[in-house]
Amino acid sequence: MPRVHIDVMLKDEILDPQGQAVERALPQLGYEAISGVRIGKHIELDVGEGVDVAATVEGIAHELLANPVIERYTWRLAEEA
Amino acid sequence: MPRVHIDVMLKDEILDPQGQAVERALPQLGYEAISGVRIGKHIELDVGEGVDVAATVEGIAHELLANPVIERYTWRLAEEA
Repeated sequence: MPRVHIDVMLKDEILDPQGQAVERALPQLGYEAISGVRIGKHIELDVGEGVDVAATVEGIAHELLANPVIERYTWRLAEEA
Repeated sequence: MPRVHIDVMLKDEILDPQGQAVERALPQLGYEAISGVRIGKHIELDVGEGVDVAATVEGIAHELLANPVIERYTWRLAEEA
């Protein structure tokens, strides 16, 4: 049964306050030279046998997981364990 | 400058109510045969040149991004754009 990983991120042009907060905390923890921190959602799910994986995942991401106004998503098949 | 993707998920033995809520909503939207839905965080960041990527990312994940009591994390280098 294929396991799919979906990442949902704010579009690049949308401000990401959570990512900024992490980025600003890092130097105080001793981590310099980290930039471009963006934080989003990671979803994993199993798609049943015989189901069109691409159509199903695109549909779920678009209808339920991502807000297409401000978010983009990518997905991939998980490597076999 | 290497871009790193980090996924932070609840450990498998920890209940994931958000994932369960999504899983239960799917049949009503017409998506059958989806199981094992788990929802976590996805973090992307750039690591500066000359920095030890593995040590830095492991440190940040452990100290700031994941709660090691209930969460696990994985990371990978992003493919070149």
